[in-house]
Amino acid sequence: MAAFSRKTPAQVWVVDRQQMQRRSDYLATEEPLEIRLTEPARTIAITMRTPGADFELTAGFLLSEQIITHRADVQRLTHCRDRTLAPDHRDNIVTVTLRPGLTPNLTGLERHFYTTSACGVCGKTSLEALKVRCGAIADTSATVTPATLQQLPHKLQAAQGIFQATGGLHAAALFDLAGNLLAVYEDVGRHNALDKLLGAALLGGQLPLDRHIVLVSGRASFELMQKCLVARVPIVCAVSAPSSLAVAIAQEFNLTLVGFLRGERFNLYSGRDRLVPS
Amino acid sequence: MAAFSRKTPAQVWVVDRQQMQRRSDYLATEEPLEIRLTEPARTIAITMRTPGADFELTAGFLLSEQIITHRADVQRLTHCRDRTLAPDHRDNIVTVTLRPGLTPNLTGLERHFYTTSACGVCGKTSLEALKVRCGAIADTSATVTPATLQQLPHKLQAAQGIFQATGGLHAAALFDLAGNLLAVYEDVGRHNALDKLLGAALLGGQLPLDRHIVLVSGRASFELMQKCLVARVPIVCAVSAPSSLAVAIAQEFNLTLVGFLRGERFNLYSGRDRLVPS
Repeated sequence: MAAFSRKTPAQVWVVDRQQMQRRSDYLATEEPLEIRLTEPARTIAITMRTPGADFELTAGFLLSEQIITHRADVQRLTHCRDRTLAPDHRDNIVTVTLRPGLTPNLTGLERHFYTTSACGVCGKTSLEALKVRCGAIADTSATVTPATLQQLPHKLQAAQGIFQATGGLHAAALFDLAGNLLAVYEDVGRHNALDKLLGAALLGGQLPLDRHIVLVSGRASFELMQKCLVARVPIVCAVSAPSSLAVAIAQEFNLTLVGFLRGERFNLYSGRDRLVPS
Repeated sequence: MAAFSRKTPAQVWVVDRQQMQRRSDYLATEEPLEIRLTEPARTIAITMRTPGADFELTAGFLLSEQIITHRADVQRLTHCRDRTLAPDHRDNIVTVTLRPGLTPNLTGLERHFYTTSACGVCGKTSLEALKVRCGAIADTSATVTPATLQQLPHKLQAAQGIFQATGGLHAAALFDLAGNLLAVYEDVGRHNALDKLLGAALLGGQLPLDRHIVLVSGRASFELMQKCLVARVPIVCAVSAPSSLAVAIAQEFNLTLVGFLRGERFNLYSGRDRLVPS
């Protein structure tokens, strides 16, 4: 029923030195998604996303914002059914009905839109604010071998259909501690790909993800680490570099953080206790 | 005077197969920046950024939001001087004094925070909303040769100091039509790198950038294209893929959009008229 596909066909000129050739190609689809609550009846977010897992994205967004914490907090997720809107338009609106009795605290949301998930005006303040919401992941019984980690990027790549077609999508993948791929989600927005992944886990009743590994295709930032912390993921891997605040969060909350995970080489920034010999 | 550097030293374990070695490394610094207006006295944004060009970032943000359109619209930019705050804290706050008589329209800002710069709930609506603010770039007298474009990534790479040290930063670069590098800015956030570049141009009295080329190190999204359109940049190049909405904007507003610009090969998605033989 979706009016939008995850990839959009396009005609492109391929230029090689002075040669130009017309070719058919695919682009990663980017469209806005509006998230509405029924009670209170209001729009709480509009984000640019790749269509395809809108309910998962919505659940992950609500989880990251800590408007919901369990699957049972969501009574219903629907695409908009307002017949006065064009079909394209309706497919870009998800309406959320929370469970009766759950009064969402939306005061943090406004701050959120100012802050892109930051909670203060220096890194230290941001970490302090996060501490009020989340404790450290003290448990180090979730262990993994270097050999297992080294195989993850290859498994992600093998599973990524659209990325190879368009080259334009970020991916987030969930693995168990033996390195089995459990889920992959893709999006033009890095935070959306992770929201989809964590939202799917919430909707599937899999939270907390305390025996799991998350791999993101790009860099690790404050925002991505915060989302993993809320979902209680102990081991976070990035194909590219982490930022200074990403490492600070990992150290503060005892997450295992791996960066530059490519082939047989990677960097370990925090949480060495979870790394065990093969 | 800045308490924060663009790169943060870190100790890291480098894992290669089963070998682990401790090494000193650098991370891209990520810290929040709060942007305050003096009149009306209020915070209008907090963004996670890499310290180092805070005034440029602030000017670029205000330009993208169309709170300002000319250099003269900004009377003063200062870091916060409130001695009751810690130095770290003060360096993460920029205070903007607009020119007397300029009453900023902030109603769009709230929508902005919901929308990450989107203006509607389908791509078409987003384009329509942008049309009200910006006309197409009808002028096709700004031309460039494929050979000039093919040299840009190499020039960007040669100029990128921090990126090579940390691998963690996005870059945005400004070139003239002969391919001379005029400016480069880097940031953990792709939109921030471009805001810094365009903000620097605004503060330098260089707007409109209608005889210029912008190159971004990553992908081209709706948001990046919108920023280039506001600054009137006719030729936009990305090292990686454009999204469907990025191409739609380029076609609608007659921008020349180049993607996958790497070595001697690139894709041209729109605005072929500006490409001329070497």
